[in-house]
Amino acid sequence: MKLASLSHGREGRLVVVSADLTRATDAFPVVATLQAALDDWERLAPRLADLAEGLEHGSVPSFRFHEHDCAAPLPRAFQWLDGSAYVNHVELARKARGAAMPENFWTDPLMYQGGSDAPLAPRAPIHARSEEDGIDFEAEIAVITGDVPMGATREQALAAIRLVMLANDVSLRNRIPSELAKGFGFIQSKPSTSFSPVAVTPGALGSAWRDGKLHRPLLAQLNGAPFGRPDAGTDMTFDFGTLIAHAAATRRLSAGTIIGSGTVSNRDADGGPGKPVAEGGVGYACIAEQRMVETLRQGEPKTSFLRFGDTVRIEMKDADGHSIFGAIEQEVLPHD
Amino acid sequence: MKLASLSHGREGRLVVVSADLTRATDAFPVVATLQAALDDWERLAPRLADLAEGLEHGSVPSFRFHEHDCAAPLPRAFQWLDGSAYVNHVELARKARGAAMPENFWTDPLMYQGGSDAPLAPRAPIHARSEEDGIDFEAEIAVITGDVPMGATREQALAAIRLVMLANDVSLRNRIPSELAKGFGFIQSKPSTSFSPVAVTPGALGSAWRDGKLHRPLLAQLNGAPFGRPDAGTDMTFDFGTLIAHAAATRRLSAGTIIGSGTVSNRDADGGPGKPVAEGGVGYACIAEQRMVETLRQGEPKTSFLRFGDTVRIEMKDADGHSIFGAIEQEVLPHD
Repeated sequence: MKLASLSHGREGRLVVVSADLTRATDAFPVVATLQAALDDWERLAPRLADLAEGLEHGSVPSFRFHEHDCAAPLPRAFQWLDGSAYVNHVELARKARGAAMPENFWTDPLMYQGGSDAPLAPRAPIHARSEEDGIDFEAEIAVITGDVPMGATREQALAAIRLVMLANDVSLRNRIPSELAKGFGFIQSKPSTSFSPVAVTPGALGSAWRDGKLHRPLLAQLNGAPFGRPDAGTDMTFDFGTLIAHAAATRRLSAGTIIGSGTVSNRDADGGPGKPVAEGGVGYACIAEQRMVETLRQGEPKTSFLRFGDTVRIEMKDADGHSIFGAIEQEVLPHD
Repeated sequence: MKLASLSHGREGRLVVVSADLTRATDAFPVVATLQAALDDWERLAPRLADLAEGLEHGSVPSFRFHEHDCAAPLPRAFQWLDGSAYVNHVELARKARGAAMPENFWTDPLMYQGGSDAPLAPRAPIHARSEEDGIDFEAEIAVITGDVPMGATREQALAAIRLVMLANDVSLRNRIPSELAKGFGFIQSKPSTSFSPVAVTPGALGSAWRDGKLHRPLLAQLNGAPFGRPDAGTDMTFDFGTLIAHAAATRRLSAGTIIGSGTVSNRDADGGPGKPVAEGGVGYACIAEQRMVETLRQGEPKTSFLRFGDTVRIEMKDADGHSIFGAIEQEVLPHD
């Protein structure tokens, strides 16, 4: 089943979307918003699934689905916790600035609590106050959970995953070092995150969803050119069950909690840092990682962070080349 | 005007509470939940104020108000950002562990993004998995904002404050050092926060609310004995306008955002660390601070963190000795 929230007021208007993303039907006969659906998922999900089946069969009223009409699947959410599950990315970042990575980073997930009150729609511009902030994208996988009890096991956590989507964890790189030094996490260096138009149930992802990971290349484009296509199922040190259990260690998580994977990152076939797409590598899911690799290989970064007018596109395709979640596509613009 | 959310489903049931906290009237004729009221505050607040006036005059139906029937004013919230505005507290923490405090801590607020999806009701137990985690309370002031645009000035931020309340930022002290070292903020060391039964408009706080600060002693009790009574208007380095503007520097904040002051903390009259209540001082708004002062004065901490069965009470009284927000009163219990 695929769900989306059309832009409409603060909560959006929940629609069920066809598997091929061409048509949608209003979920209103069942439930008006995605948060309300998540609040009572056991009862409502089967009824939404009936609508999805009717949509495929043409037996319910439907309309043309346009990705650019979408808000984030949860147009505002009660929680957004973003992990750093691809430890390769973290290790590269450390190497590039000559710092050792603590050994426990391989066993104890990094995770930060992000702002969830005002996510960006998948086609909304990224408004930033200054290019000097080092504006970057981070292409990620994210899941939406049901209620998760305090102290949940990995298995309980996996069972609580309701929906899967893509995220662009917009980052202001030049504001990160001073916030990181304070230890309190990211406030100014992590503005609003954006999410894919469509959220998909794990069951509808088929064999691509297994072991708490999504095994497909995550496609990132910068100004229409391929920038990265790392596989989200490869080099993911902490699967989503482990990330959720980490978050729930000392507190319960409410239905509608979004958990992110962190920037998807693959090592090269030889075990070293991945190569750029231009050199036949899988490239990167953020500019910072390309800059890290440039620093390691050439002594300094060559690629600039995002400029006003740049466009980022993040998407994932199934084995037949069809978009699974629709595309995040955002232009970077100056804040008025 | 005073507002509370009675425990009812996930969103609570909004009531208007009398100034003396004895009676309440259902807000339902105007709006069902506090979040919905905040979403459309300009239009709805005057109508809620009419109910409040009717309540005082006995001209609307009312019922006895019981603080223990309350959920948090926002039973789930889209954002909780907690500052550390009482830099004295931060400086003491550093001194006690022999670390220097960076000079910019006096000019650049510390702030972390906390979990807002599952706040605790003011009389709900604090469930913890182990006393070994170093369970502590932190008595704070918190405000709820309306929509705040990106890049808001301090003055715009102050004007966006809709309600004021008290908070208990429950902390697991022994989990903090490892999370702080990672730089990504607090996930496991900051379980659910609790809030006072009642949230109060700045206007109803009279002269106690000025300069973006609440000028009254914040009363903390441990097992029925006074533990601290620092004045929340004293030694607050960053007022709420400054804290909100810091949070909104690179992103907008949605209506219903909660901003916390951090642990209230006063210096002693001689400029040194505050003295315990037992020695005639104003005491402390968390156990950690008493332990810091013990470490500085006696070489090691003497007071233990919270044990199962301990009870914490946090309250604030007006000049006539009447409770303003109702009391947070929580027993610490083992998690099942």
